[in-house]
Amino acid sequence: MTDKPIPSPPPSPILSSRRAARVAPFLAMDVMSAAAAREARGEGVVHMEVGQPSAPAPRGVIAAAQAALATGALPYTQALGLPALRERIARHYAETYGVAVAPSRIVVTTGSSAGFVLAFLALFDAGARVAVPQPGYPAYRSLLHALDLVPAPLILRDADRFAPTGVALRDLHAREALACILVMSPANPSGTVIEPERLADLCATARGLGLRFISDEIYHGLAYGLPTETALRYDDDAIVINSFSKTWCMTGWRIGWMVVPDWLVRPVERLAQNLYISAPYLSQVAALAAFDAVEEVEAVRAGYAANRALLLDAFPGLGLGRTHPADGAFYLYADVSALTNDASAFCRRMLDEAGVAATPGLDFDAVDGGHHVRFSFAGSRSDCIDAVRRLKGWLR
Amino acid sequence: MTDKPIPSPPPSPILSSRRAARVAPFLAMDVMSAAAAREARGEGVVHMEVGQPSAPAPRGVIAAAQAALATGALPYTQALGLPALRERIARHYAETYGVAVAPSRIVVTTGSSAGFVLAFLALFDAGARVAVPQPGYPAYRSLLHALDLVPAPLILRDADRFAPTGVALRDLHAREALACILVMSPANPSGTVIEPERLADLCATARGLGLRFISDEIYHGLAYGLPTETALRYDDDAIVINSFSKTWCMTGWRIGWMVVPDWLVRPVERLAQNLYISAPYLSQVAALAAFDAVEEVEAVRAGYAANRALLLDAFPGLGLGRTHPADGAFYLYADVSALTNDASAFCRRMLDEAGVAATPGLDFDAVDGGHHVRFSFAGSRSDCIDAVRRLKGWLR
Repeated sequence: MTDKPIPSPPPSPILSSRRAARVAPFLAMDVMSAAAAREARGEGVVHMEVGQPSAPAPRGVIAAAQAALATGALPYTQALGLPALRERIARHYAETYGVAVAPSRIVVTTGSSAGFVLAFLALFDAGARVAVPQPGYPAYRSLLHALDLVPAPLILRDADRFAPTGVALRDLHAREALACILVMSPANPSGTVIEPERLADLCATARGLGLRFISDEIYHGLAYGLPTETALRYDDDAIVINSFSKTWCMTGWRIGWMVVPDWLVRPVERLAQNLYISAPYLSQVAALAAFDAVEEVEAVRAGYAANRALLLDAFPGLGLGRTHPADGAFYLYADVSALTNDASAFCRRMLDEAGVAATPGLDFDAVDGGHHVRFSFAGSRSDCIDAVRRLKGWLR
Repeated sequence: MTDKPIPSPPPSPILSSRRAARVAPFLAMDVMSAAAAREARGEGVVHMEVGQPSAPAPRGVIAAAQAALATGALPYTQALGLPALRERIARHYAETYGVAVAPSRIVVTTGSSAGFVLAFLALFDAGARVAVPQPGYPAYRSLLHALDLVPAPLILRDADRFAPTGVALRDLHAREALACILVMSPANPSGTVIEPERLADLCATARGLGLRFISDEIYHGLAYGLPTETALRYDDDAIVINSFSKTWCMTGWRIGWMVVPDWLVRPVERLAQNLYISAPYLSQVAALAAFDAVEEVEAVRAGYAANRALLLDAFPGLGLGRTHPADGAFYLYADVSALTNDASAFCRRMLDEAGVAATPGLDFDAVDGGHHVRFSFAGSRSDCIDAVRRLKGWLR
């Protein structure tokens, strides 16, 4: 090593930006890191900490990726995505929901993460308030903070089956002067599906109040009884965010999409060109085959349904019987107040002592999260059986 | 189609955010779309509009991707990237530059695009001024606008071979109260390599002024004579952004990296968890094999060198003889003022009439770009020959 760098001056008192400092760690990913460290030491871990399907992507998806790889050329695409994929996604809305969406309104994104960044930046300037469900997906809050927007928690109530309601939205808007409401159904972590009539009411209420409506539909296709309806049926101006990650088991492929109103296409395109250039080429080509994998996706969903039944059966005997609805998605959000006053410490000990990784509720709810833990049942059946066995021994 | 959506109210006067409205279209990508439309009509196009290597990724990279695909499991990774890839990138600094960088300081990113977003958000709050080279990569300016930061153009001068200088930085800081300087070497579009002593002076000047230093080193490995030196040799606190896209021909894989000081790792990690979750898994596994492809990368570089020589030989006869240095990267940035007063209209006609796609200078320079055009020579030799033939016929 030659030419030693000049020694650094003493670091300035504020090192990172204030907006970065407002971004909380994503505890699920910190648990994932701790679990990886445990595995590197050769100790077993049952992974229930991240929403990661254990099944591989559908066979047709992998075959399409293999064929594209064999050609060797994996270029940038247009910022809005490959035209064929945009058309195929538009067809999905006609086939699945009976809702007409023009391909020109589809934006292919680098996972749903990119969809949120693009929607927030395209729609809002600094200081705008966005209602986000609480408990809810933590990245909503963090992304809003990072982009100088203000998350306004819309508190979900047991009496509403933890679904957002038009009444609660109206109340919050009266206090917070919102610009937007973001909803998710099926929800993370609660699993709650917003029933069609309630979703219609939310869309109408938001429209009446002059608010933008963002609908996170990433768990559509993963429900265990209730129907999942797209917000586009009730509001053609809704911004819908979706992804191939969950339903099609394509997390690490980083591929998703948004549906935006016509007038938002060009602002989103300009942002996407600069922030992402394009979504990964191979994932775009592969995703084209995803919608045809109907039977495989259904088999995976049936596996989740069985895992869900297994855990719902076993959890009461473990003192984890108070859970949120779990109508859809692949989580049990369990009240652990009978077992601990500190869910984060509980999760650390559960990983260290029982080898079960799960996510503390503070990721999802800064107020009530301290006595909740989220367990993902997106793993295999044997994972779920193993987890119950380990927890039984540990909680004895 | 059932259940017609409720008709929209009249759109509000300001539809997108002010920050999105400040983001200019990326003209190179708009030219790419126009070129794709021309090709869809069955008409030929020589692509010189985007920095897209025509060569495939190295064989080892593709083999690694195929092996990973065959296992089927492509999960999220840790937000900072696969540990093995972070270690391999750290080793690259020791082997290529003789500079010691701990793997803990490497952040694997979804292309260099993500590196800039993470650096800007982690370091700066709204209103901070960042010096960016002009002419320069347009996404710098647009990303800064989108994130409520202020680009301060550092005008590059012919007398300095279009390299930024310590003197120019000092002058600009006196007027603009900068927070940061961003430099790129080899540069896009000029190709200028900042000589080591000049880079050392820039680092020292920035440090003396208390400015952060961001070094875009995406074209390292693609130079035609001058040595390319990393800013980390001169400033251990420099933030370095790099990518596998250009040197390793992996554009559509969306995989890159940053090197950050220790104190910035955790803020960047928290942002990355929320903005990206992780870079694409397959691209991370594949990139592990990239650094071993020394001979393939050198063969591609030699091809660019030959393309460059061919164009530098032919362009004067076409009235395109006044070009920026082109010490590295794969662009000729040509003064077209002898041929037109409007480079954008010139590029449109060149595509429509000659089937040659190139990027108008306004992408890179809002002031002087109106009489410049950027030609990429990252295509094949036959592309370059074809382009010269078409231009000769068209410009006759």
